[in-house]
Amino acid sequence: MPSVCVIGASGFTGALAAALLHRHPSFELVAVTSRSDAGRRLDDLYPRHRVPLVLEELDLDRHGGADAAVVAYPHGAAAATVAELRRRGVVVVDLSADFRLRDLGDYERFYGDHAAPELLDHAAYGLPELHRERIAAAELVANPGCYPTATLLSLAPMARAGILRGVVVDAKSGVSGAGRAATETTHFVSMDENVLPYGVAGHRHRPEIEQELAALGPAAPVTFVPHLLPLDQGELVSCYVDPARAVGAEELRDLYEQAYQDEPFVEVVDRPPGVRDVHATNICRISVHVDEGTGRPMAFGAIDNLWKGASAQAVQNLNLMFGLDEAEGLGETASPREARA
Amino acid sequence: MPSVCVIGASGFTGALAAALLHRHPSFELVAVTSRSDAGRRLDDLYPRHRVPLVLEELDLDRHGGADAAVVAYPHGAAAATVAELRRRGVVVVDLSADFRLRDLGDYERFYGDHAAPELLDHAAYGLPELHRERIAAAELVANPGCYPTATLLSLAPMARAGILRGVVVDAKSGVSGAGRAATETTHFVSMDENVLPYGVAGHRHRPEIEQELAALGPAAPVTFVPHLLPLDQGELVSCYVDPARAVGAEELRDLYEQAYQDEPFVEVVDRPPGVRDVHATNICRISVHVDEGTGRPMAFGAIDNLWKGASAQAVQNLNLMFGLDEAEGLGETASPREARA
Amino acid sequence: MPSVCVIGASGFTGALAAALLHRHPSFELVAVTSRSDAGRRLDDLYPRHRVPLVLEELDLDRHGGADAAVVAYPHGAAAATVAELRRRGVVVVDLSADFRLRDLGDYERFYGDHAAPELLDHAAYGLPELHRERIAAAELVANPGCYPTATLLSLAPMARAGILRGVVVDAKSGVSGAGRAATETTHFVSMDENVLPYGVAGHRHRPEIEQELAALGPAAPVTFVPHLLPLDQGELVSCYVDPARAVGAEELRDLYEQAYQDEPFVEVVDRPPGVRDVHATNICRISVHVDEGTGRPMAFGAIDNLWKGASAQAVQNLNLMFGLDEAEGLGETASPREARA
Amino acid sequence: MPSVCVIGASGFTGALAAALLHRHPSFELVAVTSRSDAGRRLDDLYPRHRVPLVLEELDLDRHGGADAAVVAYPHGAAAATVAELRRRGVVVVDLSADFRLRDLGDYERFYGDHAAPELLDHAAYGLPELHRERIAAAELVANPGCYPTATLLSLAPMARAGILRGVVVDAKSGVSGAGRAATETTHFVSMDENVLPYGVAGHRHRPEIEQELAALGPAAPVTFVPHLLPLDQGELVSCYVDPARAVGAEELRDLYEQAYQDEPFVEVVDRPPGVRDVHATNICRISVHVDEGTGRPMAFGAIDNLWKGASAQAVQNLNLMFGLDEAEGLGETASPREARA
Repeated sequence: MPSVCVIGASGFTGALAAALLHRHPSFELVAVTSRSDAGRRLDDLYPRHRVPLVLEELDLDRHGGADAAVVAYPHGAAAATVAELRRRGVVVVDLSADFRLRDLGDYERFYGDHAAPELLDHAAYGLPELHRERIAAAELVANPGCYPTATLLSLAPMARAGILRGVVVDAKSGVSGAGRAATETTHFVSMDENVLPYGVAGHRHRPEIEQELAALGPAAPVTFVPHLLPLDQGELVSCYVDPARAVGAEELRDLYEQAYQDEPFVEVVDRPPGVRDVHATNICRISVHVDEGTGRPMAFGAIDNLWKGASAQAVQNLNLMFGLDEAEGLGETASPREARA
Repeated sequence: MPSVCVIGASGFTGALAAALLHRHPSFELVAVTSRSDAGRRLDDLYPRHRVPLVLEELDLDRHGGADAAVVAYPHGAAAATVAELRRRGVVVVDLSADFRLRDLGDYERFYGDHAAPELLDHAAYGLPELHRERIAAAELVANPGCYPTATLLSLAPMARAGILRGVVVDAKSGVSGAGRAATETTHFVSMDENVLPYGVAGHRHRPEIEQELAALGPAAPVTFVPHLLPLDQGELVSCYVDPARAVGAEELRDLYEQAYQDEPFVEVVDRPPGVRDVHATNICRISVHVDEGTGRPMAFGAIDNLWKGASAQAVQNLNLMFGLDEAEGLGETASPREARA
Repeated sequence: MPSVCVIGASGFTGALAAALLHRHPSFELVAVTSRSDAGRRLDDLYPRHRVPLVLEELDLDRHGGADAAVVAYPHGAAAATVAELRRRGVVVVDLSADFRLRDLGDYERFYGDHAAPELLDHAAYGLPELHRERIAAAELVANPGCYPTATLLSLAPMARAGILRGVVVDAKSGVSGAGRAATETTHFVSMDENVLPYGVAGHRHRPEIEQELAALGPAAPVTFVPHLLPLDQGELVSCYVDPARAVGAEELRDLYEQAYQDEPFVEVVDRPPGVRDVHATNICRISVHVDEGTGRPMAFGAIDNLWKGASAQAVQNLNLMFGLDEAEGLGETASPREARA
Repeated sequence: MPSVCVIGASGFTGALAAALLHRHPSFELVAVTSRSDAGRRLDDLYPRHRVPLVLEELDLDRHGGADAAVVAYPHGAAAATVAELRRRGVVVVDLSADFRLRDLGDYERFYGDHAAPELLDHAAYGLPELHRERIAAAELVANPGCYPTATLLSLAPMARAGILRGVVVDAKSGVSGAGRAATETTHFVSMDENVLPYGVAGHRHRPEIEQELAALGPAAPVTFVPHLLPLDQGELVSCYVDPARAVGAEELRDLYEQAYQDEPFVEVVDRPPGVRDVHATNICRISVHVDEGTGRPMAFGAIDNLWKGASAQAVQNLNLMFGLDEAEGLGETASPREARA
């Protein structure tokens, strides 16, 4: 059974990755590390995860001996550690943005200097529904951001079909997306009974979305605006498409049905998805529609930002990298179209 | 002091109109009526409003003797009663959609038969920031929907300046916008930790928005999609504009500053507004931005859907119709741009 | 593999029981029934549960052939159906109150006539931590109420030790405890930003609590007051004990540690539990303290009202009745006291 | 018109005091100060309050010239500043605990050294319903804590009638009660879908409650346990009384009706109060009941912890100290018992 460490397990996504791997039937979680909380029990920090391990200081000699690692450091802080782990032969899924953008200039504009640019060409972009084979062959996977995950799954079939000439993505996320840091923004009183747009003039997830869309079809400019909502976990992207050609509701629906019929973690449904429908699952639930007044195609995609948007997708990637069943250890899969009577 | 009745005071908007009028220094609230809850105290139904009146059955002979009425009946049910009140000379602000659309065909498509089409030409559209003089001269005012209120205030300066060639409006509303009826949708457990698009293929607020935008500038098709959020009161519209010409952030900001500098209930601000900022006020708080990747102009407008989106705006209209100070009895007005040291 | 039906699967607890049994490795969920929603897919009503079965009308000839049934009918409506199922030899766990009270007079006072009083003596009270052996031998189990579950687990060690002379139980529950019916109370706007005591003068869970406490030690009068909170799932009982003798914090803690050290679903912890800690688990998390001013012993117990408080405990009971591992199919178990380094 | 400063206006209670005084018809708010946020606009920190003043560094020479001050410093930090202000003749309402406890030992045990013990004898305890005359004559008022406010109002009539032999107070507060500091506890994700007891073994509000109860009747030991709830503003105390003698529901109700019939800010009602009923008001809403099983008297009191529990009560005290109408500038008063037909 492959051994795995979670490096940076005291944040929301690292802790959830640890919880999923602790219960995974085919991985052995051998260590969890933390820069800020070493010495504390992980189930003291996150009682609900019930991972009875003590957080350790990172020790590359020791942790570098694991078969695999999930790295959950902040953007910019991950690259150097990932490089050290790779040097020791550890298979890595990195939750940060450090290996997502193939254009170093894009990276530097949003995140600053890159500590290991030589690895960029070796990293697979970890969205299995788009890059399954490349991920399975990779030893370093850049786990997508939560917003790009929901957006790309919601738009990929239209992008591939050449329908996408441009798109407005109005994204809505629960507060867990803002991370564990206690700030004025994450204070309960700031977000309770509130909804708040942020990063409106230009959000760093846009280049990630544009990069991946460009690989699927003609370049399409993206307007991307995230909003914080008064809920814990859950993310909805509402995608308003500027279409390259007219498209009917039925054609659109068929396109998505076919694209995702064999995907274990994508559901195409008739009614708009709510984020409650995917809470604590690795599922992306999508509906597509055509605005009757303007003929504009629209896609709505819901995920759990900590699960499919981060930690569970990391485990999905690890499963692929180690030749396991992609859905192993991840709980719910997409509901079948046909019900038993 | 003019006497006023609230007809249909057991719903959220009628009850709030009653509360505002009960405390208004220049109106006397003489009666509140209800079809479903006659005989109950209004402060038993809505303790927080503290209006110590008993709900009555509507009695046109009696209530038709008031100087003014706010009618808070459902769409379709209001027109006949409004007509009766007008026949008796009562000045009316109607909260329903029955007198908002000047095109009877549009009305019938979304709401069915109209009981008093002859009054359509006499109704002023009750958005004071656009139709102040017409409202002051009217005896029947159609109070705008909450979504059109926030959307029109957020877009009017661009529409007037000829910038608006089309727009996507992603609207987000608290659950009070769905009304007092207890349904699967309004159940706490349905909306808690959720966000849910609805009416996606075509919402009845679209024609209302298009009608009013058309009066300000060239016709601009509108894609309008509302979403329910897990909060009580509050509404945000995120408006993504397809511009007729390039526009810079500073020009955009100046345009809005000038348009609204004398408005008591519109705030133009630098950072995106949150709905908490306007809770329980008649204020619409707006920020405008230009998406750095695409040059797309964007406007974000926040209101309280029950206040500026319904009942408080009705009182603002009544103030105008009776020649009072427009802000009387409405509490907070927009913060001044300059602070005292 | 034993076959099982869920009778009344359209309510919150029946639907969750169906979801747990649908994924249970040692039961086969063969049918779900509903009086109000027959013909609908269960995963249409509850997308998050992903049970792809169609709800059926109850057909005793057919459903009476299953090995076991979970009955999730309202109090009063369950007894007759349970009796029919028992007549056909079906092993039953009943979620209603119909077989919880051994005193028929107590039952009739709170719930009215009883349709099958002859079965009362055959029903085991389904709290495994108190009645494990009796449950294992039973063919009819009365699943406890959510409030009695949390309260009894929080008080049993003190009751057994003769410390309990009386107790005030201040109970706090999420809105899912009020059921699926859309009412003024369960409307989002009623409970958002609210906390509300109810059933203050006498709640029907009191006799159930007193009955079970009386079996453990000297009779102790119970004051029980429930409160609704603005959250979905989760329940906390705060128990303030009138002690028969002085007791120290350490003695109290040891008493609970020993009582529950081998229990898979009870956690004794140092700091007061939050309901987040047990969300979507079958775990009851308890802390005990002594009030420094008065010497009063206190116990705080947190459960998920739909899981340990209803459906998951029903599965725990089924596991016992069929000789399976008690924890099978129930996910998380209590965190061990010792952590791995 | 008396001039008033708010010293420490960047916290929740100071900012609300500033907002109320800014709009007060008979006070002039001349300055707001802050140690941490001097130089920022108050309406930038708290847009919803719309107080267009810039926060200043405290300057005793200047601010000590005001007629009155509300001091909103943390416990322990207030006393020295209050003493300086008093030395300059400024009338002070202090929101901290520094002048609430008449027993210096009690104070030191919970808060540490006291910087101005010589002022303790000159401070009036600022609960107008108990100490109206003393407040009106005082130049220094110690504004009560939010928990003592709700608890004392809920228990005073029973204490005065000699019914109170002991009491368990289970208190529930919104997160604003934990203050503006961004901590793990106040993080949205920590409190969303949660309820959490805290300070269980001994909370510093207990001596304050016992001190004031002792002035009303025989000494009664108090068990006081606060809980945090997932809401912004609002506080409920559930009081379970150990009675000195039997008391009936009607007698109890009459006792409270009479005690509070002339109070502008206390409502005695039949059904248990919800905190929504008193949101953003200075009202305490109380119901009293007798537990049918045990005969135990119970009182439930709801307040807005920031309003009646802090800032609005401070203004009520200022009104009394300056001979104004007690309710001036405070909005809603208690609903009358009789409704107009």
